[in-house]
Amino acid sequence: MSEATVSRVFNDVGPMKEQTRLRVLQAAKALNYHPNAIAQSFARRRSGNLGVVLPYVPKVHIFSTYYFSEVLSGIGEQVKASGYDMLLKFRVPGEESDHSDIFRSQKVDACVILGATDTPSERAELKKLEDGGFPFCLINQHMSGERFHEVDADHEGGSYRAVRYLLDLGYRDIAFLSGSPEFSNSGDRLRGYMQAMREAGLLPADAKAPGDLPVHLYYEGNYSRTSGMKTASAMHPHLNRIEAVFASNDRMAIGLMQGLREYGHVPGRDYAIVGYDDSEAARVTDPPLTSVAVPFYEMGQLAAERVLRRVGGGNETDGASESFRLRLDTKLVVRQSCCILR
Amino acid sequence: MSEATVSRVFNDVGPMKEQTRLRVLQAAKALNYHPNAIAQSFARRRSGNLGVVLPYVPKVHIFSTYYFSEVLSGIGEQVKASGYDMLLKFRVPGEESDHSDIFRSQKVDACVILGATDTPSERAELKKLEDGGFPFCLINQHMSGERFHEVDADHEGGSYRAVRYLLDLGYRDIAFLSGSPEFSNSGDRLRGYMQAMREAGLLPADAKAPGDLPVHLYYEGNYSRTSGMKTASAMHPHLNRIEAVFASNDRMAIGLMQGLREYGHVPGRDYAIVGYDDSEAARVTDPPLTSVAVPFYEMGQLAAERVLRRVGGGNETDGASESFRLRLDTKLVVRQSCCILR
Repeated sequence: MSEATVSRVFNDVGPMKEQTRLRVLQAAKALNYHPNAIAQSFARRRSGNLGVVLPYVPKVHIFSTYYFSEVLSGIGEQVKASGYDMLLKFRVPGEESDHSDIFRSQKVDACVILGATDTPSERAELKKLEDGGFPFCLINQHMSGERFHEVDADHEGGSYRAVRYLLDLGYRDIAFLSGSPEFSNSGDRLRGYMQAMREAGLLPADAKAPGDLPVHLYYEGNYSRTSGMKTASAMHPHLNRIEAVFASNDRMAIGLMQGLREYGHVPGRDYAIVGYDDSEAARVTDPPLTSVAVPFYEMGQLAAERVLRRVGGGNETDGASESFRLRLDTKLVVRQSCCILR
Repeated sequence: MSEATVSRVFNDVGPMKEQTRLRVLQAAKALNYHPNAIAQSFARRRSGNLGVVLPYVPKVHIFSTYYFSEVLSGIGEQVKASGYDMLLKFRVPGEESDHSDIFRSQKVDACVILGATDTPSERAELKKLEDGGFPFCLINQHMSGERFHEVDADHEGGSYRAVRYLLDLGYRDIAFLSGSPEFSNSGDRLRGYMQAMREAGLLPADAKAPGDLPVHLYYEGNYSRTSGMKTASAMHPHLNRIEAVFASNDRMAIGLMQGLREYGHVPGRDYAIVGYDDSEAARVTDPPLTSVAVPFYEMGQLAAERVLRRVGGGNETDGASESFRLRLDTKLVVRQSCCILR
């Protein structure tokens, strides 16, 4: 007797020989099978859990970073409202991530995946999930060419507006501090930056890649404060030409400000700076940091709500045929870090 | 046939009639019971999940608070190292918390409980868990008279040292801003404060309760920034006598500083202030806040590690007979918020 048959009996769905049905029910009775919650969920194929896959972030208390804490708070709020529990799955460094494992073990009914990277192996993993009809949703990551469920923010527009703001203040030599390129949202920020710079006539009309930028304007970190701080030594020799910096998140901006201060460069006096995320830290730096606000909390809430809807959908492969891609608005929050008095 | 019998067959433990064993195995075979992961965990009574119960905190993004984010990061680290997943259970306001539910549903093998309050109904709930032989551990909460597993910090000592520090600087009228009294760690702080004040001869030798304090020295909030801010209006009329404030956490200290600033009282100039938690925010306030560092991350790690050990213990009631209570050290971190130049 197959698992599917057992499942059909307990769900009372599908065609079924009466004899088979009785055999299952007798066996279940012998095992005192029914009243058990796990057995019920086995039968109904429902765990009552929403899975959340977290990336491996070395040396960082992951819940203490603004991005993850806000997204998780939003997911948590929705999970609570839906009567679900939240199962956190921590990726282990070096291990191939087999996301389908937690679905197969029936630990979760649906999944939200944070920090997915656009690599061939990750794509293959996600394809497997999709093919298996497991409902999942990516947050803050777009995989072009795929039809995965995604909740994203308009990082391109947010970055464009941040750089436009700097241009409108009169700055011309605006450096860009990128985050890790394997995230689509890093590329989004670069595109927004370049569009604004091209429109201002500061880059050739066909400039698209980091390689098309003057060397003193492009820097790369990995979204950590440390990486921002390390950028200071590379940027310092060019600070006589750089007038402003657009950093891809607040943590790197803060690290960079600290690092440049050690070379004697004072933010808001010697150079303007804009961060990204509008984290709590942006409010308390000296000077307070102009930044791009992203509705991370709402993104988490929305992703959970939408992906949990797919669970009730009956036919498990239904979801794949009508994938959702939501992109939320971002907003520039102006503070004092750009108001240089010359 | 009872669940326990079925469980014993699959675990191959305990005395068992051969006939019973065969009946279970036949029934299991009929149901294709064995190869299924949930069925296996049903049989082995293992979910591979550590449960974490989170309190209901209104209007706050819970993962964005320093205390919860650090504790959860520590638990997460240990859970990852132990090959477990973490199941978050959000309390719903108004609902009686039936912790044993998640054990009975076999969703978790052990549990860490955050934000438990010392109320009769909560105690009864926890007793039920204990009686059921479910391994669980409280963090940052002591229930006197019970033998629950606990990982706590030395809040009494931390508070004592903070107030001693203020006394050593020459302050005499030191106000205390308490957090919610239903947490044992709030009482710990009060005790530390009062001991230091008594030793300095500033309180009668038998002063113990808040009622024994001069009215201008005792204030109560609920650990939120807003509650600290609201305290400002009550404290403001007394600021001509109050020289220093010891606040029970940084959030309240920061709220209070903001609130008092609106009345024209500048922290570090008009009054000294010490916070508690040594959160990231303490480093970036103006002036930077002297605070008591608590190893929340390590507390989370330790609680998870210890309680997961109990899972492997075979006899489920074993744990109750040798409960652990760990209390970690706290440390005063001196910054500029107390260095008033008169």
